[in-house]
Amino acid sequence: MFITFEGGEGAGKSTAIKRIVEKLTSEGYEIVLTREPGGTPIAEEIRNVILDKKNTAMDPRTEALLYAASRRQHLVEKVIPALKEGKLVLCDRFIDSSLAYQGGAREIGIDNVYNMNLFATEGMLPDLTILFDIKPEVGLARIAANSQREVNRLDVEKLTFHNKVRDSFHELAKRFPERFVIIDASKGPDEVFEESYKAIEDRLKK
Amino acid sequence: MFITFEGGEGAGKSTAIKRIVEKLTSEGYEIVLTREPGGTPIAEEIRNVILDKKNTAMDPRTEALLYAASRRQHLVEKVIPALKEGKLVLCDRFIDSSLAYQGGAREIGIDNVYNMNLFATEGMLPDLTILFDIKPEVGLARIAANSQREVNRLDVEKLTFHNKVRDSFHELAKRFPERFVIIDASKGPDEVFEESYKAIEDRLKK
Repeated sequence: MFITFEGGEGAGKSTAIKRIVEKLTSEGYEIVLTREPGGTPIAEEIRNVILDKKNTAMDPRTEALLYAASRRQHLVEKVIPALKEGKLVLCDRFIDSSLAYQGGAREIGIDNVYNMNLFATEGMLPDLTILFDIKPEVGLARIAANSQREVNRLDVEKLTFHNKVRDSFHELAKRFPERFVIIDASKGPDEVFEESYKAIEDRLKK
Repeated sequence: MFITFEGGEGAGKSTAIKRIVEKLTSEGYEIVLTREPGGTPIAEEIRNVILDKKNTAMDPRTEALLYAASRRQHLVEKVIPALKEGKLVLCDRFIDSSLAYQGGAREIGIDNVYNMNLFATEGMLPDLTILFDIKPEVGLARIAANSQREVNRLDVEKLTFHNKVRDSFHELAKRFPERFVIIDASKGPDEVFEESYKAIEDRLKK
Protein backbone atom coordinates (compact mmCIF):
# COMPACT_ATOMS: atom_id res chain seq x y z
CA MET A 1 0.00 0.00 0.00
CA PHE A 2 1.18 3.46 -0.96
CA ILE A 3 0.33 6.28 1.48
CA THR A 4 1.21 9.94 0.91
CA PHE A 5 1.20 12.89 3.30
CA GLU A 6 0.36 16.37 2.10
CA GLY A 7 -0.23 19.79 3.54
CA GLY A 8 0.99 23.36 3.69
CA GLU A 9 4.06 24.64 5.48
CA GLY A 10 4.14 24.17 9.26
CA ALA A 11 1.24 21.73 9.38
CA GLY A 12 3.20 19.36 11.63
CA LYS A 13 3.52 16.65 8.97
CA SER A 14 7.01 15.51 9.98
CA THR A 15 6.14 15.12 13.68
CA ALA A 16 3.02 13.11 12.90
CA ILE A 17 4.77 10.92 10.31
CA LYS A 18 7.54 10.05 12.80
CA ARG A 19 4.98 8.76 15.32
CA ILE A 20 3.00 6.94 12.62
CA VAL A 21 6.12 5.09 11.49
CA GLU A 22 6.98 4.10 15.08
CA LYS A 23 3.48 2.81 15.75
CA LEU A 24 3.17 0.91 12.45
CA THR A 25 6.60 -0.65 12.98
CA SER A 26 5.64 -1.76 16.50
CA GLU A 27 2.53 -3.35 14.94
CA GLY A 28 4.82 -5.43 12.74
CA TYR A 29 4.48 -3.64 9.41
CA GLU A 30 7.49 -3.37 7.14
CA ILE A 31 7.70 0.33 6.40
CA VAL A 32 9.60 2.33 3.82
CA LEU A 33 9.45 6.01 4.75
CA THR A 34 10.55 8.23 1.91
CA ARG A 35 10.20 11.67 0.35
CA GLU A 36 11.15 12.90 -3.08
CA PRO A 37 13.93 12.81 -4.23
CA GLY A 38 14.47 10.05 -1.67
CA GLY A 39 18.22 9.63 -1.90
CA THR A 40 18.12 8.41 -5.49
CA PRO A 41 21.09 10.18 -7.10
CA ILE A 42 19.37 11.22 -10.34
CA ALA A 43 16.31 12.55 -8.51
CA GLU A 44 18.63 14.41 -6.10
CA GLU A 45 20.45 16.00 -9.02
CA ILE A 46 17.15 17.13 -10.53
CA ARG A 47 16.00 18.52 -7.20
CA ASN A 48 19.24 20.51 -6.90
CA VAL A 49 18.38 22.28 -10.15
CA ILE A 50 14.91 23.19 -8.81
CA LEU A 51 16.12 24.47 -5.44
CA ASP A 52 19.22 26.28 -6.75
CA LYS A 53 18.67 29.83 -5.51
CA LYS A 54 20.38 31.36 -8.53
CA ASN A 55 17.72 29.87 -10.84
CA THR A 56 15.32 32.79 -10.38
CA ALA A 57 14.48 32.79 -14.11
CA MET A 58 12.87 29.37 -13.85
CA ASP A 59 9.50 29.21 -15.56
CA PRO A 60 6.68 27.59 -13.51
CA ARG A 61 6.15 24.89 -16.17
CA THR A 62 9.86 24.08 -16.18
CA GLU A 63 9.65 23.68 -12.41
CA ALA A 64 6.59 21.42 -12.70
CA LEU A 65 8.34 19.24 -15.31
CA LEU A 66 11.42 18.94 -13.10
CA TYR A 67 9.35 17.90 -10.09
CA ALA A 68 7.65 15.30 -12.28
CA ALA A 69 11.04 14.04 -13.55
CA SER A 70 12.32 13.72 -9.98
CA ARG A 71 9.05 11.99 -9.02
CA ARG A 72 9.37 9.50 -11.87
CA GLN A 73 12.89 8.49 -10.94
CA HIS A 74 12.08 8.16 -7.23
CA LEU A 75 8.98 6.12 -8.06
CA VAL A 76 10.84 3.71 -10.34
CA GLU A 77 13.95 3.32 -8.20
CA LYS A 78 12.45 3.31 -4.72
CA VAL A 79 8.65 3.27 -4.35
CA ILE A 80 7.66 0.60 -6.86
CA PRO A 81 10.39 -1.89 -5.83
CA ALA A 82 9.33 -1.55 -2.15
CA LEU A 83 5.66 -2.03 -3.02
CA LYS A 84 6.57 -5.14 -5.02
CA GLU A 85 8.26 -6.53 -1.89
CA GLY A 86 4.94 -6.07 -0.06
CA LYS A 87 6.16 -3.16 2.04
CA LEU A 88 4.06 -0.25 3.22
CA VAL A 89 5.43 2.84 1.50
CA LEU A 90 4.91 6.18 3.24
CA CYS A 91 5.85 9.22 1.20
CA ASP A 92 6.12 12.76 2.54
CA ARG A 93 4.57 14.80 -0.33
CA PHE A 94 3.83 13.41 -3.79
CA ILE A 95 1.76 14.30 -6.85
CA ASP A 96 -0.78 16.41 -4.93
CA SER A 97 1.94 18.88 -3.90
CA SER A 98 2.62 19.55 -7.59
CA LEU A 99 -1.09 19.91 -8.25
CA ALA A 100 -1.58 22.35 -5.35
CA TYR A 101 1.65 24.37 -5.70
CA GLN A 102 2.26 24.46 -9.46
CA GLY A 103 -1.24 23.66 -10.70
CA GLY A 104 -3.26 25.79 -8.28
CA ALA A 105 -1.06 28.41 -6.63
CA ARG A 106 1.22 29.08 -9.59
CA GLU A 107 -1.86 28.95 -11.81
CA ILE A 108 -0.72 26.47 -14.45
CA GLY A 109 -4.03 24.69 -13.85
CA ILE A 110 -4.63 21.56 -11.81
CA ASP A 111 -5.76 19.54 -14.87
CA ASN A 112 -2.67 20.50 -16.89
CA VAL A 113 -0.27 19.51 -14.11
CA TYR A 114 -2.29 16.38 -13.35
CA ASN A 115 -2.19 15.06 -16.91
CA MET A 116 1.50 15.77 -17.21
CA ASN A 117 2.16 13.99 -13.91
CA LEU A 118 0.21 10.94 -15.06
CA PHE A 119 2.89 10.64 -17.75
CA ALA A 120 5.46 10.56 -14.93
CA THR A 121 3.63 8.00 -12.78
CA GLU A 122 2.16 5.99 -15.69
CA GLY A 123 -1.23 6.58 -14.12
CA MET A 124 -0.22 5.42 -10.64
CA LEU A 125 -1.76 7.30 -7.72
CA PRO A 126 -1.51 6.84 -3.93
CA ASP A 127 -3.91 4.44 -2.22
CA LEU A 128 -4.37 6.91 0.63
CA THR A 129 -3.46 10.58 1.00
CA ILE A 130 -3.48 12.20 4.44
CA LEU A 131 -3.93 15.96 4.14
CA PHE A 132 -2.72 17.93 7.15
CA ASP A 133 -4.92 20.98 6.87
CA ILE A 134 -4.01 24.24 8.57
CA LYS A 135 -4.56 27.96 8.03
CA PRO A 136 -1.40 29.41 6.45
CA GLU A 137 -1.15 32.10 9.17
CA VAL A 138 -0.94 29.41 11.84
CA GLY A 139 1.43 27.19 9.86
CA LEU A 140 3.85 29.99 9.02
CA ALA A 141 3.86 31.23 12.62
CA ARG A 142 4.86 27.71 13.72
CA ILE A 143 7.74 27.72 11.21
CA ALA A 144 8.99 31.12 12.40
CA ALA A 145 9.01 29.82 15.98
CA ASN A 146 10.99 26.77 14.96
CA SER A 147 14.62 27.69 14.36
CA GLN A 148 15.59 24.03 13.93
CA ARG A 149 14.25 23.86 10.40
CA GLU A 150 15.79 25.87 7.60
CA VAL A 151 13.35 28.29 5.96
CA ASN A 152 13.36 27.72 2.19
CA ARG A 153 12.22 29.68 -0.82
CA LEU A 154 8.66 28.35 -0.64
CA ASP A 155 8.28 29.38 3.01
CA VAL A 156 8.90 33.02 2.39
CA GLU A 157 6.44 33.45 -0.46
CA LYS A 158 3.41 35.55 0.20
CA LEU A 159 0.51 34.46 2.34
CA THR A 160 -1.87 34.74 -0.60
CA PHE A 161 0.17 32.04 -2.31
CA HIS A 162 -0.22 29.74 0.70
CA ASN A 163 -3.93 30.41 0.79
CA LYS A 164 -4.15 29.33 -2.85
CA VAL A 165 -2.21 26.17 -1.99
CA ARG A 166 -4.67 25.38 0.78
CA ASP A 167 -7.69 26.01 -1.43
CA SER A 168 -6.16 23.72 -4.07
CA PHE A 169 -5.64 20.93 -1.56
CA HIS A 170 -9.30 21.23 -0.58
CA GLU A 171 -10.28 21.04 -4.24
CA LEU A 172 -8.16 17.90 -4.64
CA ALA A 173 -9.77 16.31 -1.59
CA LYS A 174 -13.17 16.88 -3.22
CA ARG A 175 -11.94 15.55 -6.54
CA PHE A 176 -10.39 12.38 -5.10
CA PRO A 177 -12.60 11.53 -2.09
CA GLU A 178 -11.73 7.82 -2.36
CA ARG A 179 -8.12 8.41 -1.37
CA PHE A 180 -8.11 11.75 0.55
CA VAL A 181 -8.54 12.07 4.32
CA ILE A 182 -8.39 15.60 5.77
CA ILE A 183 -6.88 16.00 9.25
CA ASP A 184 -7.40 19.24 11.18
CA ALA A 185 -3.75 20.07 11.84
CA SER A 186 -4.55 23.06 14.06
CA LYS A 187 -5.21 20.55 16.85
CA GLY A 188 -2.47 19.38 19.22
CA PRO A 189 0.15 16.85 18.06
CA ASP A 190 -1.48 13.95 19.95
CA GLU A 191 -4.85 14.40 18.29
CA VAL A 192 -3.27 14.96 14.86
CA PHE A 193 -1.28 11.75 15.24
CA GLU A 194 -4.24 9.73 16.51
CA GLU A 195 -6.60 10.86 13.78
CA SER A 196 -4.14 10.27 10.99
CA TYR A 197 -3.11 6.89 12.40
CA LYS A 198 -6.77 5.88 12.61
CA ALA A 199 -7.25 6.79 8.93
CA ILE A 200 -4.33 4.53 7.99
CA GLU A 201 -5.53 1.72 10.25
CA ASP A 202 -9.00 1.86 8.69
CA ARG A 203 -7.49 1.63 5.20
CA LEU A 204 -5.20 -1.25 6.18
CA LYS A 205 -8.16 -3.23 7.51
CA LYS A 206 -9.99 -2.92 4.18
CA MET B 1 8.43 32.13 -38.07
CA PHE B 2 9.75 29.15 -36.18
CA ILE B 3 11.64 26.54 -38.21
CA THR B 4 13.06 23.33 -36.77
CA PHE B 5 15.55 20.84 -38.22
CA GLU B 6 15.31 17.16 -37.42
CA GLY B 7 16.96 13.92 -38.46
CA GLY B 8 19.03 10.99 -37.33
CA GLU B 9 22.74 11.00 -36.55
CA GLY B 10 25.07 11.91 -39.40
CA ALA B 11 22.36 13.31 -41.67
CA GLY B 12 24.39 16.44 -42.38
CA LYS B 13 22.02 18.76 -40.51
CA SER B 14 24.73 21.08 -39.17
CA THR B 15 26.37 21.62 -42.56
CA ALA B 16 23.07 22.40 -44.23
CA ILE B 17 21.91 24.71 -41.42
CA LYS B 18 25.14 26.70 -41.61
CA ARG B 19 24.59 27.40 -45.32
CA ILE B 20 20.89 28.15 -44.81
CA VAL B 21 21.73 30.75 -42.16
CA GLU B 22 24.32 32.40 -44.44
CA LYS B 23 21.92 32.55 -47.35
CA LEU B 24 18.95 33.83 -45.30
CA THR B 25 21.16 36.47 -43.68
CA SER B 26 22.41 37.61 -47.09
CA GLU B 27 18.75 37.92 -48.12
CA GLY B 28 18.24 40.34 -45.24
CA TYR B 29 16.43 38.14 -42.74
CA GLU B 30 17.13 38.60 -39.04
CA ILE B 31 17.99 35.10 -37.90
CA VAL B 32 18.29 33.53 -34.47
CA LEU B 33 19.96 30.14 -34.82
CA THR B 34 19.61 28.06 -31.69
CA ARG B 35 19.46 24.55 -30.32
CA GLU B 36 18.31 23.28 -26.97
CA PRO B 37 19.47 24.12 -24.29
CA GLY B 38 20.59 27.21 -26.21
CA GLY B 39 22.90 28.78 -23.67
CA THR B 40 20.11 29.44 -21.18
CA PRO B 41 21.70 28.55 -17.84
CA ILE B 42 18.74 26.61 -16.38
CA ALA B 43 18.23 24.60 -19.58
CA GLU B 44 22.01 23.90 -19.64
CA GLU B 45 21.90 22.63 -16.06
CA ILE B 46 19.00 20.33 -16.94
CA ARG B 47 20.83 19.07 -20.03
CA ASN B 48 23.89 18.28 -17.91
CA VAL B 49 21.76 15.94 -15.79
CA ILE B 50 20.52 14.13 -18.94
CA LEU B 51 23.95 13.74 -20.53
CA ASP B 52 25.83 12.88 -17.31
CA LYS B 53 27.40 9.51 -18.16
CA LYS B 54 27.13 8.25 -14.58
CA ASN B 55 23.31 8.51 -14.76
CA THR B 56 22.90 5.06 -16.30
CA ALA B 57 19.90 4.32 -14.05
CA MET B 58 17.85 7.04 -15.74
CA ASP B 59 14.36 5.89 -16.64
CA PRO B 60 13.21 6.76 -20.21
CA ARG B 61 10.26 8.78 -18.90
CA THR B 62 12.55 10.74 -16.57
CA GLU B 63 14.72 11.51 -19.60
CA ALA B 64 11.69 12.61 -21.64
CA LEU B 65 10.51 14.90 -18.82
CA LEU B 66 13.97 16.45 -18.50
CA TYR B 67 14.16 17.12 -22.25
CA ALA B 68 10.72 18.75 -22.01
CA ALA B 69 11.84 20.87 -19.03
CA SER B 70 14.93 22.02 -20.91
CA ARG B 71 12.75 22.71 -23.97
CA ARG B 72 10.31 24.79 -21.94
CA GLN B 73 13.01 26.99 -20.48
CA HIS B 74 14.74 27.49 -23.84
CA LEU B 75 11.42 28.32 -25.47
CA VAL B 76 10.43 30.89 -22.84
CA GLU B 77 13.84 32.53 -22.49
CA LYS B 78 15.05 32.47 -26.07
CA VAL B 79 12.64 31.33 -28.82
CA ILE B 80 9.47 33.22 -27.89
CA PRO B 81 11.23 36.58 -27.22
CA ALA B 82 12.99 36.35 -30.61
CA LEU B 83 9.73 35.50 -32.41
CA LYS B 84 8.06 38.48 -30.69
CA GLU B 85 10.81 40.70 -32.11
CA GLY B 86 9.84 39.43 -35.56
CA LYS B 87 12.97 37.36 -36.03
CA LEU B 88 13.23 34.10 -37.91
CA VAL B 89 14.07 31.42 -35.35
CA LEU B 90 15.90 28.33 -36.60
CA CYS B 91 16.22 25.53 -34.06
CA ASP B 92 18.41 22.46 -34.47
CA ARG B 93 16.17 19.69 -33.05
CA PHE B 94 12.97 20.33 -31.12
CA ILE B 95 9.83 18.47 -30.03
CA ASP B 96 10.01 15.89 -32.86
CA SER B 97 13.34 14.58 -31.58
CA SER B 98 11.65 13.71 -28.28
CA LEU B 99 8.76 12.09 -30.14
CA ALA B 100 11.10 10.01 -32.33
CA TYR B 101 13.75 9.10 -29.74
CA GLN B 102 11.76 8.76 -26.50
CA GLY B 103 8.30 8.23 -27.92
CA GLY B 104 9.14 5.88 -30.79
CA ALA B 105 12.57 4.34 -30.30
CA ARG B 106 12.44 4.07 -26.50
CA GLU B 107 8.85 2.92 -26.84
CA ILE B 108 7.13 5.29 -24.42
CA GLY B 109 4.66 5.98 -27.23
CA ILE B 110 4.56 8.98 -29.54
CA ASP B 111 1.15 10.13 -28.22
CA ASN B 112 2.29 9.97 -24.59
CA VAL B 113 5.42 12.02 -25.24
CA TYR B 114 3.51 14.40 -27.52
CA ASN B 115 0.84 15.23 -24.93
CA MET B 116 3.44 15.71 -22.21
CA ASN B 117 5.45 18.00 -24.51
CA LEU B 118 2.37 20.10 -25.27
CA PHE B 119 2.39 20.90 -21.55
CA ALA B 120 5.97 22.15 -22.02
CA THR B 121 5.26 24.23 -25.13
CA GLU B 122 1.72 25.28 -24.15
CA GLY B 123 0.59 23.83 -27.44
CA MET B 124 3.14 25.69 -29.54
CA LEU B 125 4.59 23.78 -32.52
CA PRO B 126 7.07 24.76 -35.26
CA ASP B 127 5.72 26.45 -38.40
CA LEU B 128 8.04 24.33 -40.54
CA THR B 129 10.10 21.23 -39.79
CA ILE B 130 12.84 20.13 -42.18
CA LEU B 131 13.53 16.42 -41.79
CA PHE B 132 16.98 15.33 -43.02
CA ASP B 133 16.23 11.73 -43.86
CA ILE B 134 19.01 9.17 -44.16
CA LYS B 135 19.48 5.44 -43.67
CA PRO B 136 21.11 4.88 -40.25
CA GLU B 137 23.89 2.76 -41.82
CA VAL B 138 24.88 5.68 -44.01
CA GLY B 139 24.54 8.28 -41.27
CA LEU B 140 26.56 6.32 -38.74
CA ALA B 141 29.29 5.60 -41.30
CA ARG B 142 29.56 9.35 -41.89
CA ILE B 143 29.97 9.96 -38.16
CA ALA B 144 32.68 7.31 -37.84
CA ALA B 145 34.57 8.95 -40.70
CA ASN B 146 34.33 12.34 -39.04
CA SER B 147 36.75 12.56 -36.13
CA GLN B 148 35.99 16.25 -35.65
CA ARG B 149 32.74 15.57 -33.85
CA GLU B 150 32.64 13.82 -30.49
CA VAL B 151 30.64 10.58 -30.52
CA ASN B 152 28.03 10.67 -27.75
CA ARG B 153 25.93 8.09 -25.95
CA LEU B 154 23.16 8.19 -28.56
CA ASP B 155 25.60 7.55 -31.40
CA VAL B 156 26.79 4.24 -30.08
CA GLU B 157 23.39 2.70 -29.48
CA LYS B 158 22.38 -0.14 -31.71
CA LEU B 159 21.40 0.24 -35.31
CA THR B 160 17.93 -1.14 -34.59
CA PHE B 161 17.40 1.84 -32.32
CA HIS B 162 18.33 4.24 -35.11
CA ASN B 163 16.03 2.45 -37.48
CA LYS B 164 13.19 2.93 -35.02
CA VAL B 165 14.07 6.62 -34.81
CA ARG B 166 13.90 6.92 -38.58
CA ASP B 167 10.58 5.08 -38.79
CA SER B 168 9.20 7.39 -36.09
CA PHE B 169 10.28 10.50 -38.00
CA HIS B 170 8.49 9.15 -41.05
CA GLU B 171 5.38 8.56 -38.94
CA LEU B 172 5.57 12.15 -37.66
CA ALA B 173 5.92 13.51 -41.20
CA LYS B 174 2.70 11.66 -42.09
CA ARG B 175 0.97 12.91 -38.96
CA PHE B 176 1.95 16.55 -39.44
CA PRO B 177 2.09 17.00 -43.24
CA GLU B 178 1.31 20.74 -42.92
CA ARG B 179 4.64 21.47 -41.27
CA PHE B 180 6.98 18.59 -42.29
CA VAL B 181 9.21 18.59 -45.36
CA ILE B 182 11.37 15.51 -45.95
CA ILE B 183 14.80 16.05 -47.52
CA ASP B 184 16.73 13.09 -48.92
CA ALA B 185 19.96 13.55 -46.96
CA SER B 186 21.79 10.78 -48.78
CA LYS B 187 22.32 13.26 -51.61
CA GLY B 188 25.37 15.53 -51.77
CA PRO B 189 25.62 18.61 -49.51
CA ASP B 190 24.77 21.04 -52.32
CA GLU B 191 21.53 19.33 -53.20
CA VAL B 192 20.58 18.89 -49.55
CA PHE B 193 21.16 22.59 -48.95
CA GLU B 194 19.29 23.69 -52.05
CA GLU B 195 16.25 21.52 -51.38
CA SER B 196 15.97 22.54 -47.76
CA TYR B 197 16.51 26.20 -48.60
CA LYS B 198 13.77 25.99 -51.21
CA ALA B 199 11.35 24.54 -48.64
CA ILE B 200 12.05 27.48 -46.33
CA GLU B 201 11.77 30.00 -49.16
CA ASP B 202 8.41 28.55 -50.19
CA ARG B 203 7.12 28.84 -46.65
CA LEU B 204 8.40 32.39 -46.23
CA LYS B 205 6.55 33.44 -49.39
CA LYS B 206 3.24 32.17 -48.03
